[in-house]
Amino acid sequence: MALTDRQRLDWLRLIRSESIGPRTFRALMNRFGGAAAALDALPELARTSGRSIRICSVAEAEREIEALRRCGGRLIALGEPDYPRPLQAIDSAPPLLLVLGRGEVLLRPCVALVGSRNASAAGLKFTARLAQDLGEAGFVVVSGLARGIDTAAHGASLGTGTVAVLAGGLDEIYPPQNAQLFERLIMSGAAISEMPMGWAPRGRDFPQRNRLVSGLALGTVVVEAARKSGSLITARFANEQGRQVFAVPGSPLDPRAEGGNHLIREGATLCAEAAHVIEALAPLLGHGGALPTGLAQPRAGYDPESEYLWDELDLPEISPAPRTVLPPAIAGSDLEPPSEAVGEAEGEGGGDEIRARVLALLGAAPVSLDDLIRASGRSARDVGRLLIELELDGTILRHPGGALSRVMP
Amino acid sequence: MALTDRQRLDWLRLIRSESIGPRTFRALMNRFGGAAAALDALPELARTSGRSIRICSVAEAEREIEALRRCGGRLIALGEPDYPRPLQAIDSAPPLLLVLGRGEVLLRPCVALVGSRNASAAGLKFTARLAQDLGEAGFVVVSGLARGIDTAAHGASLGTGTVAVLAGGLDEIYPPQNAQLFERLIMSGAAISEMPMGWAPRGRDFPQRNRLVSGLALGTVVVEAARKSGSLITARFANEQGRQVFAVPGSPLDPRAEGGNHLIREGATLCAEAAHVIEALAPLLGHGGALPTGLAQPRAGYDPESEYLWDELDLPEISPAPRTVLPPAIAGSDLEPPSEAVGEAEGEGGGDEIRARVLALLGAAPVSLDDLIRASGRSARDVGRLLIELELDGTILRHPGGALSRVMP
Repeated sequence: MALTDRQRLDWLRLIRSESIGPRTFRALMNRFGGAAAALDALPELARTSGRSIRICSVAEAEREIEALRRCGGRLIALGEPDYPRPLQAIDSAPPLLLVLGRGEVLLRPCVALVGSRNASAAGLKFTARLAQDLGEAGFVVVSGLARGIDTAAHGASLGTGTVAVLAGGLDEIYPPQNAQLFERLIMSGAAISEMPMGWAPRGRDFPQRNRLVSGLALGTVVVEAARKSGSLITARFANEQGRQVFAVPGSPLDPRAEGGNHLIREGATLCAEAAHVIEALAPLLGHGGALPTGLAQPRAGYDPESEYLWDELDLPEISPAPRTVLPPAIAGSDLEPPSEAVGEAEGEGGGDEIRARVLALLGAAPVSLDDLIRASGRSARDVGRLLIELELDGTILRHPGGALSRVMP
Repeated sequence: MALTDRQRLDWLRLIRSESIGPRTFRALMNRFGGAAAALDALPELARTSGRSIRICSVAEAEREIEALRRCGGRLIALGEPDYPRPLQAIDSAPPLLLVLGRGEVLLRPCVALVGSRNASAAGLKFTARLAQDLGEAGFVVVSGLARGIDTAAHGASLGTGTVAVLAGGLDEIYPPQNAQLFERLIMSGAAISEMPMGWAPRGRDFPQRNRLVSGLALGTVVVEAARKSGSLITARFANEQGRQVFAVPGSPLDPRAEGGNHLIREGATLCAEAAHVIEALAPLLGHGGALPTGLAQPRAGYDPESEYLWDELDLPEISPAPRTVLPPAIAGSDLEPPSEAVGEAEGEGGGDEIRARVLALLGAAPVSLDDLIRASGRSARDVGRLLIELELDGTILRHPGGALSRVMP
């Protein structure tokens, strides 16, 4: 089933509107039955929550589609046959993927290879060997086009198929010195992004991007990573997404091995050669690419308060992302809004009353949706509707697993 | 409870007699009620099995005790208060330990550090740091006095207490270049051996010795080890003895990391710093040194047919040990001979008949004692008695876990 051009345009307008991430997109679609209806309802929703939301115009969306067409790319919508199924399984799957190159590689089994930008010669050599062996075994190698390990991973799998996931627009190649690699890569493989054309990546876009790197892949291999690095956030996403995490060990005297060794102690599979990945992922193949869900339970031991984000950019002056929470668009949610589309509008007084009550129940520490509904004494439908508003106006955050917290000023 | 001098002499004579290893020693003690009675019975037992056994004379045993006294050492017997309790818990514990130096260190909690003789500079540095940190945390460092990792481990723990386990006699320092380290080591720590004074170590003595290295310790850390190395046999012993195995990771491109990385994949705990050992072993401390048994189940994946033995010696011309079986003295047994001392003698014909039947049931592949008894149709007592004879005359081998096989010509 493919979207009509009109639907595609509406989807793009909705996801490009202010404060709308993949989860809010999904919640709005569920509530209003489609993107066009959600776009119509947005101004009133925003007013209810006491602010205005900038809605992406038809002209803007058309310009983006045109820009994408001009450089040879296309949009793939969630649910369409070309949308990669492992990515579709994650709960913050982008409604629309922008794709350049040979999109069909996205449908083959993928392994993500990630690691340090300041990699050692040994790390680069090992990565190239691993990427080549995985490619020859039939896997597509996914990475982030960064310097170091990412570059080695893409470079060694140009012949067998590789996918670069960008943190910015498909016409904003970062880092610029990888422009040539990018051109070669899309000849045999593909580049994807969820960000608008022309979008220059900011620091916080990198960890958001990392969830797509892990989400595309059946497993993620961390090759060289310091203890606090973007690669570890990718590993955490992989784990939360129920995907297998592999880590390459190294000497305890080598700071670049700290992240990998730490992951192994936390339960990641030690990878010393491609066979270790292949044998672990083999049971997932041959089922039409369908991914068993819940391959692994999220583990304790990851510290969401750690700061990985600025590590991704080569700019030392980049400001760190907020300390205590994941960016809203990657915070998970199990919220199931009522499947009946729209209920009657809440009376003004009722809306204020439930809003005050729910806000009083929320603090900096995440609570589960179930607990929140129970404590509020209101229906799941009413609370669910309010939460969309609170999320839209930036008052609350949704965390992986569906827990909710209030953004503290 | 300590042995009398007379008992000690008898114990020494029995364990020094031909074909008597720790397990046969224990079986004979159980059957005959004491070493003196076992020594009396040995000639007849040997005749029954069609060969003669050289029995250690009183004079020989006295000479060994005197030689040990002259260099300041002493004998500690299994069951005496000075015998290290973790070692006592292994099923091939030596009846007698020869000890030089400060034997009291044997009663403190020990960690074994083992690794390659041809260690890298990084491996040596890491070992020294680890040994020092473990020593400062209160652990005694046990190793094998070999070149490389062993030397670094002993050297860095001279101030806090270290134990060298020798494969030969206490007056046969191997390798000779570690004679000075040995002298310093016994000032603050101890050296132990189960082998006679004056015994120059052979290739096959090293893996036997390794079971004592792991058996003394609450956990064994493998620092640098090739895929086929004596350190891996020590790790296997540690695992079979229910002790925790730690391995230090390294780059997959470094052959010296293969053994450690392999162990981690098999389930060993990754050790990148002393804290990883300390936190894992802490729960075992503070219980009067008593070791919980069954800390870990033996794992599959070790290949007993691998040849580690000649790796231990610096002599390239050393002949490898037999290929398919562990040396009898380290092959395990759960055989529980009848606790009543001696039954009536088996009639000549009855003995031949059961002998032929049991031998027909045994082949190169180990079978369990229970299966053997069932298949033989004879009593556990009769089969147990015959097995002592067959073990004495070298016809059968006992494997860890109590399985039995026939020695193939």
